[in-house]
Amino acid sequence: MSNRIITISREFGSGGRTIGRLAAQKLGVACYDQELIDKIAQESGLFRKYVEEHAEDARGWMDLVSSHDYYGRSVGDKLFSAQTKVIRELADKESCVIVGRCADYILGEYDNVLKVFIHASMDKRAERIVNQYGERTEAPIQRLKEKDRKRRAYYQMYTDRRWGAMENYHVALDSGVVGIERCAEIIAGLY
Amino acid sequence: MSNRIITISREFGSGGRTIGRLAAQKLGVACYDQELIDKIAQESGLFRKYVEEHAEDARGWMDLVSSHDYYGRSVGDKLFSAQTKVIRELADKESCVIVGRCADYILGEYDNVLKVFIHASMDKRAERIVNQYGERTEAPIQRLKEKDRKRRAYYQMYTDRRWGAMENYHVALDSGVVGIERCAEIIAGLY
Repeated sequence: MSNRIITISREFGSGGRTIGRLAAQKLGVACYDQELIDKIAQESGLFRKYVEEHAEDARGWMDLVSSHDYYGRSVGDKLFSAQTKVIRELADKESCVIVGRCADYILGEYDNVLKVFIHASMDKRAERIVNQYGERTEAPIQRLKEKDRKRRAYYQMYTDRRWGAMENYHVALDSGVVGIERCAEIIAGLY
Repeated sequence: MSNRIITISREFGSGGRTIGRLAAQKLGVACYDQELIDKIAQESGLFRKYVEEHAEDARGWMDLVSSHDYYGRSVGDKLFSAQTKVIRELADKESCVIVGRCADYILGEYDNVLKVFIHASMDKRAERIVNQYGERTEAPIQRLKEKDRKRRAYYQMYTDRRWGAMENYHVALDSGVVGIERCAEIIAGLY
């Protein structure tokens, strides 16, 4: 297997998505992030918007788990199974950067994967979501905590691992201290 | 404050000490590791051997906590207080690399500190302690787990933080995947 994959797991507001894009640019490979949503929607037969809202953040995941299809499978399981298939197919097909969506866990047995985690302090992330993502300026820290809580719950539920536990990553960087561009350089340099 | 400090926290057998020395060499600054023990012994008035055995790994820390001096202070607290004083004095005096001894926590309020954590898989660490540190070849993983448990307990007791929690470090690297030399390069490059 000669493909090489970088998975980027990240706290909301840490700039992990931007770092993934920059690293992929430097390496001349594709970066899959939002693009995964279309593929997962196609694979699962679920609406794109539904996938977008549920594929990572466990927005209303209790609904997801308690809704079942004709075969008795929960919609959440169906979504995760489509996500797994799409991510494994990508990893088998080409060298790339994959952002989020439990790719670190889904590709856990692959030995050609560099697993990265990007995090930052609450203050830095709050600054970023207001200034860069154009989010509302009210109570950003409260919204970050809510996001963290949902993403952690989703990850824990599907992987049975603690989200952000250091032992699951080869490189973990505080983007607020190291800087977005420098994070991308380090990751690309390790590829 | 113009000094710049790197603290390196590390799992036993991950090569953190070697990485600290290499990074310090690249930067032309001192690396404090075993050297701290003499300073802490001098500051606390405790025997060097005693400091060496108790200053980090919580070998018999229950003894430490339950032994008290003339003023009713536990020997463990006395040791930690000497350790804090020595590490802060160093950080105020010169740019340097400090390995272990809760320096990341002790210098928590300093804004001129790059906090690094080095870890590796059990297999890689077991290989390292047998081949590099010349430890016994029997049950290395069992001994690693014991070391981890003690180091974690000591850290938790004196800092009230979870040992190895990602949010407490700016850079965390898996030395088994990234490589010892490369870890040192990344750290020195971020200085």
